[in-house]
Amino acid sequence: MLHIPLDRSKAVPLARQIGGHLERLIRERHLGPGVKLPATRELARTLGVNRATVALAYDELVAAGWARAHVGQGTFVAETPGRAGGEAGGPPASGVSSSGAAAGAAANPAPIDWSGLLSRSARIIASDDAERRGLLPGALAETVISFAGGMPDSGLFPTDAFRRVLNQVVREDGEALLQYYPTGGYPPLRRYLATYLLRFGLEARPEEILIVNGSQQGFDLIARTFIDPADVVAIEQPTYPRAMQVFRSFGAGLLAVPWDADGPRVDVFERLLERHAPKLFYCQPSAHNPTGMTIGGERAWRLLQVAARHQVPIVEDGFDGSLYYGERPAVPLKAVDRDDLVLYIGTFSKILFPGLRLGWLVAPPPVTERLQAAKQLADLHTSALLQAAVHRFCERRLLDRHAARVAAEYGRRRALLLTALRRRMPVDVAWTDPRGGFSLLLTLPPGWSATALLPRAVERGVAFTPGAAFFLDGGGERTLRLSFSSIAAGRIDEGVRRLADAIKAMAERPAARRIPERAAVPLV
Amino acid sequence: MLHIPLDRSKAVPLARQIGGHLERLIRERHLGPGVKLPATRELARTLGVNRATVALAYDELVAAGWARAHVGQGTFVAETPGRAGGEAGGPPASGVSSSGAAAGAAANPAPIDWSGLLSRSARIIASDDAERRGLLPGALAETVISFAGGMPDSGLFPTDAFRRVLNQVVREDGEALLQYYPTGGYPPLRRYLATYLLRFGLEARPEEILIVNGSQQGFDLIARTFIDPADVVAIEQPTYPRAMQVFRSFGAGLLAVPWDADGPRVDVFERLLERHAPKLFYCQPSAHNPTGMTIGGERAWRLLQVAARHQVPIVEDGFDGSLYYGERPAVPLKAVDRDDLVLYIGTFSKILFPGLRLGWLVAPPPVTERLQAAKQLADLHTSALLQAAVHRFCERRLLDRHAARVAAEYGRRRALLLTALRRRMPVDVAWTDPRGGFSLLLTLPPGWSATALLPRAVERGVAFTPGAAFFLDGGGERTLRLSFSSIAAGRIDEGVRRLADAIKAMAERPAARRIPERAAVPLV
Repeated sequence: MLHIPLDRSKAVPLARQIGGHLERLIRERHLGPGVKLPATRELARTLGVNRATVALAYDELVAAGWARAHVGQGTFVAETPGRAGGEAGGPPASGVSSSGAAAGAAANPAPIDWSGLLSRSARIIASDDAERRGLLPGALAETVISFAGGMPDSGLFPTDAFRRVLNQVVREDGEALLQYYPTGGYPPLRRYLATYLLRFGLEARPEEILIVNGSQQGFDLIARTFIDPADVVAIEQPTYPRAMQVFRSFGAGLLAVPWDADGPRVDVFERLLERHAPKLFYCQPSAHNPTGMTIGGERAWRLLQVAARHQVPIVEDGFDGSLYYGERPAVPLKAVDRDDLVLYIGTFSKILFPGLRLGWLVAPPPVTERLQAAKQLADLHTSALLQAAVHRFCERRLLDRHAARVAAEYGRRRALLLTALRRRMPVDVAWTDPRGGFSLLLTLPPGWSATALLPRAVERGVAFTPGAAFFLDGGGERTLRLSFSSIAAGRIDEGVRRLADAIKAMAERPAARRIPERAAVPLV
Repeated sequence: MLHIPLDRSKAVPLARQIGGHLERLIRERHLGPGVKLPATRELARTLGVNRATVALAYDELVAAGWARAHVGQGTFVAETPGRAGGEAGGPPASGVSSSGAAAGAAANPAPIDWSGLLSRSARIIASDDAERRGLLPGALAETVISFAGGMPDSGLFPTDAFRRVLNQVVREDGEALLQYYPTGGYPPLRRYLATYLLRFGLEARPEEILIVNGSQQGFDLIARTFIDPADVVAIEQPTYPRAMQVFRSFGAGLLAVPWDADGPRVDVFERLLERHAPKLFYCQPSAHNPTGMTIGGERAWRLLQVAARHQVPIVEDGFDGSLYYGERPAVPLKAVDRDDLVLYIGTFSKILFPGLRLGWLVAPPPVTERLQAAKQLADLHTSALLQAAVHRFCERRLLDRHAARVAAEYGRRRALLLTALRRRMPVDVAWTDPRGGFSLLLTLPPGWSATALLPRAVERGVAFTPGAAFFLDGGGERTLRLSFSSIAAGRIDEGVRRLADAIKAMAERPAARRIPERAAVPLV
C-alpha cells in the first residue's frame, strides 16, 4: 500500500523510521487531512516488520498530533496535523524524516533553472497570463449580482435526461466505448451532425467532420496545423480572448479587423490582406462574443469574396446557431462558402454542457485529414463514451427540446437586460443589440475606464467583465461585457440599477474614471 | 428543420427546386441512407410554400429512387440512393441541383492550395504519417490470432461497476460536473492520486498533479512547453512511437539512447549530453513499451545523477506501476529524484479504460503552472464528470480490486507466451523478459526482416507489430513486438505455433527474409 524505505543497518529504530517518514508525508501534505493510514497488519506485511513496530509508530504519530485513532475504524491523518499535539506547528522533524531531499540538494547545489528551458510558446503564454492577471473580478460575495460569467446557466441543464442516456450507452455498448477509439470521432455522431448542420444550410459529409474537445481544441488544432512563428493572423476586433491567445502562443502576430454594425469591416480586411498576407482570418459571425451581434448577409458575401481572391482561409467560430434571438438563425459563412475556404468550429458547450468538452470542426477533406493527424498526436481521440451519450441525447430529440427551452429563457433574460438598460442608463452610455449568444457590450463615455469602474461596481454589489480583454493592444478600455445567460431573470433589473448607480457616482468624480496606469499596458 | 434556398423569380417550379436541392444533398451524402426527411407539413411551413409542393417534390424523389415512402411513417432517404429507380448511378442531376458549387468554382477557378499553407509542424506530421503507412497489418480476418494490439483486454473491463459510479456522480453533482471546470483537475482526484502515488514511493502534493487527457496529452503539453524547432531531445531506443512523433512534430531532432539489459545506457546518455545539450530525455522506466523491461535501481540512480549534472529534465512515462509481474513494482525514477528534475506522466488507460482519456502529470510547481497554462489553451480542461466517476471508482477501492484481477490475468498470459516461445521458437530467435506492461520484443536472426515476415505470418493466421516502428532511423528491422494483453489465454500457444511455423518456412527460403526495399527508408 505505502512504500516506506527502511534502513535496517541504521541505529534509528524501525518504528522511528516509519513514524518519521509518515510524519514528513503528512507535514508536506502528501497525505492529506482525513486520509486513512493503512491497517497496521497490512503495512507490517508490506514492510516486512512486526505489527507491533507499526503500531508503535502510529501511537507516536497520534501522541504528536499528526494523526488520530478512531477505535474500531483505524488511524487517520489529523484534520489540522501537528496542531493538536505538541508545540504549535507540530513537533520538530525527526532526524530521519527529511534526510532524503536534504542530502540530494547538498550533492547538487544548483537547482534546475526551469524558466531558461521554456519554449518560445511557453514564454508567450506566461507573459499573456501575467498581463491578464487582475483583469477579472476575483471571488465575489453571494450578494454581488454578476454579469461576468459567459457560460450557460447550469440551473437549466438537462442533467437527469443526460444521466439516463449515459447509463443506456454504457449498458449497451460500454466495452467498445471505453476502449481506444478512432481519432475522427463516433461515426453516428458525425452522421447526426452532418444532418443537423443542414438546418443552417451548412453542407458537410460525415468524413469532413472531426470531433474535438470543445471549440478551444478546435482553435488549437487549426493553429498548429497552419501557424508558424512570425506568421500573421487577421482577427476580428473585439473577439474571444482565448482565440487570440492560442494564435499568439504559436508565434503569430495578430492584426485587428474592427467590427462595425454589420460585421468586420471589409475595407480594413482587404487592405490588411494586401499588405500582410495573413495565414488565416478568425471571426465569430453568428453569436459574437462579446457583442452578441451577427454578420449581415451582404457583409458575409463580401468577406468571402475578398478572402477567396486572396486565398486566405476563414476560421469561423460558430458558437451555436441554435441560440438566436431574431426570427431565424444567422446563416453561417460556411453555408455560403462556394470556394471551400471556411474552416468551421462548432460546439455543444453553449447549447448543452460546457463540461463535456465536446465540439467539432468542419473542413475540406485534405484539411480534415491534417487536423485529424494533429488531434491524434494531441490526445489520440475524444472520449467515445461522451460522444455516444450526446449522440443518443440528440437522436432522441432531447437536444432540440432543450435548445428551444433555453433559447426562450435566454431570450427572456436578454429582453429584461435591454429594458433595464434603456430605463436606467445615463444617455451617454451605449450598448449592442445581441442577436445571438450570451452577452452584449456596453460602451462608457469617451475617456472613461471600465477597469476603473469595476471595483466601484463590486462595492455596490454588481460585477462585469472589462472589455479590454476582448481587444488587441489596450483598446476597448471604455467597454464592458454584460452576460445575461447565467443570471436569474429576477436579479437583472436590480443588477442594472446598481451598475447605473456606480456609473452615476463615478460621473461626479472625474479623476476616478480615468484609465488607471496598469490598464494602459497592452493586454493581449 | 432543413434550410433550402428558393428563388421565386426563377422559371424553375418550386417543387423542382426543392426536389433538386434534396437530390443533391442525398447524392453528395449530406443526407445519409435511412435518414428521415422532414414531414411535408413541417417543411412546407419552414419554406413558406404549399404543402402539396413539398409532397410533389417528395414524390419525384421517390420515383427517381432517391427516397422511399413508408405509409404512415414518412419519407426516408433510400438505402442505395438513386440505384433503385432510373438509370444505374441515379438520374442525371437536375439543372438546379448543382448550380451553387459550380457557379462559385467558375468565378474563382483556382481552388485554395492548402498544402502550401501548412505549418512546419503539420508538414512533419504528414511526412511521418506517409512513412508509417503500410507498417502495420491492415484489417485482419477473425481467424487471425493477433499479437499486434497493445491495449488492455476490453473483455476484462469493469464496465458495469463504472456505469454505477458514473450514474451516482451525475445524480449527486451533475450540474457542477457538467459546467466549465478549473483546468488543474477535479480536486478529490488530485488528492487521491497524491496518496495513490505514495505506494510507489512517489511523493507529490495535489497541486503538483495536473489532470490531462491520457499520457498522449502529457507528451504534447510537455513538448509545447519545452521544445522549439531545432532543439534536441534524447530518447530511449526502442521506445513508444507516438512519443517520438510528438517531439518531432514540435521540430525537435531526436537522438537515441539504446537500452541494454538494465535500461538506457548511461555511457551513451552522458556522451550525448556533453555533445548535444538536449532539452529533455524521454524514457519509460517501469513497463517499457515494446520490451516490457524495467530500469534497474542502480541504473536509475546513475541516469538521474548524469541528468542532474547536466541539468536535463527527464520525462518519465510511468505507464502504470500496478501492472508488474515481479515481486514488487519498479520504483519510479521520480520517487528517487532528489533534484526535482523528473516530469512524471501517469495514466488510467492501461489499468482501467483507455477510452476515458484520463491521465496525469507530476512536476515541480513552477513547471506545473506552465503545463497548466498550456493545457488551458489546448482544451480548457478535462471532463470533470469522467474525473469524478474515476475518483469515485478509486475511492471505493474498485480500482484496487480490478488492478489485482487484471494483473493476475495478464501475468498468466505473459507466462503462457513465454512458455510457448521457449517450446516452439528456433534457437536463433531471442526475446525480452517482460516485468511489466503488455508486450515483449522478439528478435529474429541477423539479416532477417520482421516487415518481410509479417505478410507470411498473416497468411498462416498470426499477426504482430514489426519492431521498426519503435526505433529511430530504420533500426530494429529484425525485431517484432508481441502483445499478450488483449489475446485470450487459450489462443496464445496456437498463435506462437503459427508464428514459429512462419519463421521456419522463411528460414528455408533465404531470399524471402531479406529486408525489402521500402523498409530501408527511415521510419520515424
